[in-house]
Amino acid sequence: VVIVGAGFGGLQVMRALSGRDDVDVRVLDRNNYHGFWPLLYQVATAALTPDTVAYPLRQIMGRSCNITFQMTDVQCVDLVQRLVHTDTGTTPYDYLVLAAGSANNYFGNASIPKHTFSLKDVDQAVAIRQHLLDMLEQAAHEADAERRSVLLTFVIVGAGPTGVELAGAFADLLQPLLRKEYRALSPSEVRIMLVEAHETMLGSFPRALQETAARHLRRMGVMIRQNAKVTQVENGVVTFEGGKTMKAGTVVWTAGVKASAIAGTLGRQLAHAERIPVQRTLNLSDHPEVFVIGDMAYLEGYHAGKGGKPEAYPMVAEVAMQMGKCAAANILAQLNHRPSAPFRYRDLGSMSTIGRSDAVASIFGIQLSGFVAWLSWLAVHLVFLIGFRNRLAALAGWAWDYLTHNRGGRLIGGRRGETSAAAQDWM
Amino acid sequence: VVIVGAGFGGLQVMRALSGRDDVDVRVLDRNNYHGFWPLLYQVATAALTPDTVAYPLRQIMGRSCNITFQMTDVQCVDLVQRLVHTDTGTTPYDYLVLAAGSANNYFGNASIPKHTFSLKDVDQAVAIRQHLLDMLEQAAHEADAERRSVLLTFVIVGAGPTGVELAGAFADLLQPLLRKEYRALSPSEVRIMLVEAHETMLGSFPRALQETAARHLRRMGVMIRQNAKVTQVENGVVTFEGGKTMKAGTVVWTAGVKASAIAGTLGRQLAHAERIPVQRTLNLSDHPEVFVIGDMAYLEGYHAGKGGKPEAYPMVAEVAMQMGKCAAANILAQLNHRPSAPFRYRDLGSMSTIGRSDAVASIFGIQLSGFVAWLSWLAVHLVFLIGFRNRLAALAGWAWDYLTHNRGGRLIGGRRGETSAAAQDWM
Repeated sequence: VVIVGAGFGGLQVMRALSGRDDVDVRVLDRNNYHGFWPLLYQVATAALTPDTVAYPLRQIMGRSCNITFQMTDVQCVDLVQRLVHTDTGTTPYDYLVLAAGSANNYFGNASIPKHTFSLKDVDQAVAIRQHLLDMLEQAAHEADAERRSVLLTFVIVGAGPTGVELAGAFADLLQPLLRKEYRALSPSEVRIMLVEAHETMLGSFPRALQETAARHLRRMGVMIRQNAKVTQVENGVVTFEGGKTMKAGTVVWTAGVKASAIAGTLGRQLAHAERIPVQRTLNLSDHPEVFVIGDMAYLEGYHAGKGGKPEAYPMVAEVAMQMGKCAAANILAQLNHRPSAPFRYRDLGSMSTIGRSDAVASIFGIQLSGFVAWLSWLAVHLVFLIGFRNRLAALAGWAWDYLTHNRGGRLIGGRRGETSAAAQDWM
Repeated sequence: VVIVGAGFGGLQVMRALSGRDDVDVRVLDRNNYHGFWPLLYQVATAALTPDTVAYPLRQIMGRSCNITFQMTDVQCVDLVQRLVHTDTGTTPYDYLVLAAGSANNYFGNASIPKHTFSLKDVDQAVAIRQHLLDMLEQAAHEADAERRSVLLTFVIVGAGPTGVELAGAFADLLQPLLRKEYRALSPSEVRIMLVEAHETMLGSFPRALQETAARHLRRMGVMIRQNAKVTQVENGVVTFEGGKTMKAGTVVWTAGVKASAIAGTLGRQLAHAERIPVQRTLNLSDHPEVFVIGDMAYLEGYHAGKGGKPEAYPMVAEVAMQMGKCAAANILAQLNHRPSAPFRYRDLGSMSTIGRSDAVASIFGIQLSGFVAWLSWLAVHLVFLIGFRNRLAALAGWAWDYLTHNRGGRLIGGRRGETSAAAQDWM
């Protein structure tokens, strides 16, 4: 069994097959760690260190003798020959699990990724953190008010959970930091803008929670622009549909995801967001030995809220994890000539933090907001954060942060010329 | 007062002048953090995370109203006009403290820095860590025994405290890691070689401790080559004086330091290691308003061991810190028209770890080795590690490491192509 990708889905498959002597499992990932991406926005805002949200894969699978790991970049899959081509060689498979997750979707605009930051892995989160701190250092010694205002403008495109959490975390980081450590700057000069192309933010949440989140964000000083579609970002200038523009020293793109580019190498028709259509048993009808799970899989049957027609399962960690368990069970079923089971999703709800000790959550149909929602968010994320050490370190970091408003991890790495080359081009 | 560099020396000047309303202090540093470099080798070997050994400067000076900080790269100093030229502008001064520390000394060989790693700041330590883990990942899937052996050869050039500590830490990291997580590799395939041009390692230590350290390192599997001068490193091939060569996937250069390049911009005659000769009051005779401290300052008067003629003060943190206090006092003395005091060094001794719970130390003339030396090393470093949070995190990391032999922070960042481009060129 070859597993492509050790994210939430791949890890569940690996765990379910671990320790069995009837299967040899080979895990391929381009990183040597499993990332707990729901906390990545905290790395980008210096609340957690990179090591807290990522865990070495070899340590996770340490004791399982039937699992091997290879750090490699998967290029494409040959369904007919049953081969996975990587940048370091070719791996044959009997069963394949595609769990390579998603990439940012720029909707065909090739210049946007060059001029914006994104939040899909540790390196990108660290890049945001370094750029943000570099903007403050530059602003602290910029005499021209207009240029200073551009340096202190932070635009987040896309108001899904990632955008909302990041906007809240930006406000949480910047307001006290400027007050305490950058006395040359006024907190009122900072502009944090959350831009959403659709009518409402947090599209997958109940209406009441959307409004609560917007109200809380505004209270924290975040400006929210709805019905505002960004058509271009270039040299620090954001262009909206209709032609209006604004200047910003920092633009983060969280406006959409699509399946990993590996999906396109199968030579098949792809569904919405370039996902691969799968059967209810999560494999391909013409290649039952190939399973696709998580963000890469397109399968309808999700019921958002009460009533309405079924939609595709959303691209979230919870779906990937449950699909991983189902795919592993179906591989074992095929091996033992038992019938495969269809995927059934147990919806645990969704949650999004807004800031320090504030969140909105919809759990089993119950809507929560404020401190109670934040506590449940904290509990859920601590339980799922893999590995004892990371859990302790994350809790300690938060406790410290909560008590002191201090942030560790505020180091600007690299030489300035390297880390913020893009930013300096803009000015 | 302008302070160039916020290392051990600069920080002491800053602290001594903090809170006084008769001096305005401006600190220039190209990083926004103070690094506790004596622990940097632990970052390179994944025992500590980068955030533990570096501390944001703005947080350190948070409450002092007379200190401002600018993150900038100092290009040169104009002694006549009393100006510091930086990459972001020009800063005038009444008093100047040059405390920019040291850089690696490659003794004029321009190709060595391109083909070796060094250990002078957080970025370099992280680069070593990522490269080392990448070598293991590549070796785990290398079928050719000869190429695998090259991937698993780690050469450290220079057996001063940095080289000795790094060699011991490499052994400590690699042996258990290979046993537990890289079952495809045998720990006996790893070669760690410590190369020293002179007759003895740890040149500044008493003879008996040098021998103890060498014996302990050998027991840990480190090969030691003395009287072996490296003349060239290129494409993974290390050439020794006399023409012998060897191949290695990783070469770390710790063989010498010289004063920061800023020293050369003063237009003065420089002493050994490109340091600036100073008076006993730590300022320049023709420019009494300019102080030079720490690694940049050349001043004789150090007595190594008993007897012998005085040498230049060594380039260590302790000298820089004591010089910083003296320079700050002499600036205040000049301001108040009091006589300046000459620099007096209180020698607290020297110490070097060898591995987990092992060290050699010479404190107030008492020679210690083994676990007792390691405990005193631990105590001294915890006391000096700046900032409460870092101290706790470092202690927790070590305790964890000590109890479990586990390492956090073993993440390979960046894409493989970027982090180990040099290594792949070599193969």
